[in-house]
Amino acid sequence: MRALVIGGNGFIGSHLAEGLRVRGHDVRVLDPGQARADVDWTGIDYRRGAYTDAASIADALDDVDTVFHLASTTVPASSNRDPAYDVSSNLVGALGLLSAMQARGLRRIVFFSSGGTVYGDPEVLPVPESHPLKPISSYGIVKVAIEQYLSMYRHLGQLDPLVLRPSNPFGPRQSAAGGQGFVAAAIARLHEGAPLQIWGDGETVRDYIFIDDLVELAIRAAASGDCGIFNAGSGVGASLNDIRAAIERAAGRKMSVEHLPARGFDVRRVVLDVSAARERFDWSPAIDLADGIARTWQASLNP
Amino acid sequence: MRALVIGGNGFIGSHLAEGLRVRGHDVRVLDPGQARADVDWTGIDYRRGAYTDAASIADALDDVDTVFHLASTTVPASSNRDPAYDVSSNLVGALGLLSAMQARGLRRIVFFSSGGTVYGDPEVLPVPESHPLKPISSYGIVKVAIEQYLSMYRHLGQLDPLVLRPSNPFGPRQSAAGGQGFVAAAIARLHEGAPLQIWGDGETVRDYIFIDDLVELAIRAAASGDCGIFNAGSGVGASLNDIRAAIERAAGRKMSVEHLPARGFDVRRVVLDVSAARERFDWSPAIDLADGIARTWQASLNP
Repeated sequence: MRALVIGGNGFIGSHLAEGLRVRGHDVRVLDPGQARADVDWTGIDYRRGAYTDAASIADALDDVDTVFHLASTTVPASSNRDPAYDVSSNLVGALGLLSAMQARGLRRIVFFSSGGTVYGDPEVLPVPESHPLKPISSYGIVKVAIEQYLSMYRHLGQLDPLVLRPSNPFGPRQSAAGGQGFVAAAIARLHEGAPLQIWGDGETVRDYIFIDDLVELAIRAAASGDCGIFNAGSGVGASLNDIRAAIERAAGRKMSVEHLPARGFDVRRVVLDVSAARERFDWSPAIDLADGIARTWQASLNP
Repeated sequence: MRALVIGGNGFIGSHLAEGLRVRGHDVRVLDPGQARADVDWTGIDYRRGAYTDAASIADALDDVDTVFHLASTTVPASSNRDPAYDVSSNLVGALGLLSAMQARGLRRIVFFSSGGTVYGDPEVLPVPESHPLKPISSYGIVKVAIEQYLSMYRHLGQLDPLVLRPSNPFGPRQSAAGGQGFVAAAIARLHEGAPLQIWGDGETVRDYIFIDDLVELAIRAAASGDCGIFNAGSGVGASLNDIRAAIERAAGRKMSVEHLPARGFDVRRVVLDVSAARERFDWSPAIDLADGIARTWQASLNP
């Protein structure tokens, strides 16, 4: 592959860029930020620029055969504050990217959607990809809309899109400040000696997937040439309280907890049905929650 | 009701405005166009302005208790030419409207979505509201996104939205040039003595609903106070060839036909399941296709 990773300076994107390089692929990154210091960028063509900027995109697409799109200007928790901004930056930005790809006959895109938000409050667990899409955050609505444009262009014969719907990825290098990583936030609070902030009663359940498992899936799926939409999770549910307990075991000490009111845009339980990805890509998650949290904790001791 | 009809100078909007007035409601229209000459606007507060303009919206919402939103800057056939424009005008515009409503505590909105585009190529006929949303035009994708924002704000307790998904409305006053009205276009071609243009083999099936039936449903649904999403069609399928035959019967003469290539964004068959609207609003379509087309033809003789 000659891969472009849009948003390659982020948590998932930087692991993906490294994972691609390790497997022998050519890798270019497009990201507006200064390249993070905790990644070895050797051999990776790092370009600074926003994916919402047409010139940056046009430049970055040169000689690429596969685009991984992971960028977002918002996170679920912030997206409802200004949905018009969410749409104007992320949805219109994605349309600009697709248009630039089509202009040069570039067909292959792997889009990182959101298994945690597109389904809303799931009617069945684990949630299959065919579940109705009822997002209750602007973030999720925009992800659905981008998915639908990708499906439309596939239907019209203009793109070969593959959509991944990751659940809650975690692992080393995840930001504690980004608003999306509970494991990272909890570990950071423990290091600070501050109480762990939990919205609601701590029984909010999510499907946590260790970053290496997600990267392995994304690269297998991209290389397959297959199109379609695939959940990308562990298939196993864990509550905030479970995460806290796993961190306490890894760290060998107890955390104090500060309970905050439940948030209206948080869905109660999400566990993904990942049988489609398992079967299609001969993949399965290799690192369970306890192991993943132990690795994440260890990495946090030597940042 | 003290109703605001956004897009009230259009085909559906103008009939809706008249229908509301006839039933004794206060009616205001917001539309960027000069008030059409073929409507009696007596008693209707007609205001020129775009719903994408914040000042026009703020002004138009004064003293209103129910907003009907029918405006769109695109039609299905044109929307794929510039999806970014479709999103920037219609989706961002709708978000501005919702934000302005919330700012003044106005909760009731009836949104005209699109039963002909949101489902894509239906997997079952007639199509129930629970059918997966797989639009294959930008127009349909934007309608879905607006629906999802409405559902989100309902979930968050901030709006009382009702969504109608009209099939193919037809009737007097529909534009032959707008790209959405096959009946109107066919009648216009007959008057011009020009051949009827049919994309594909003429067996594309749609669910045609006479405008008076749609207006009756919209007003009943609005007045009910109910929230949710409802198909708004006749529940009966008719092909382009059926329409042509019905017009020929009404006019008492034959039409010539020019066949054009099928269009990639046209779905093959759409017939809506309207049992939910029938049951919830004690409504049923009163004017069948032959009767509706005869009325539309008669009206076209005295424009």
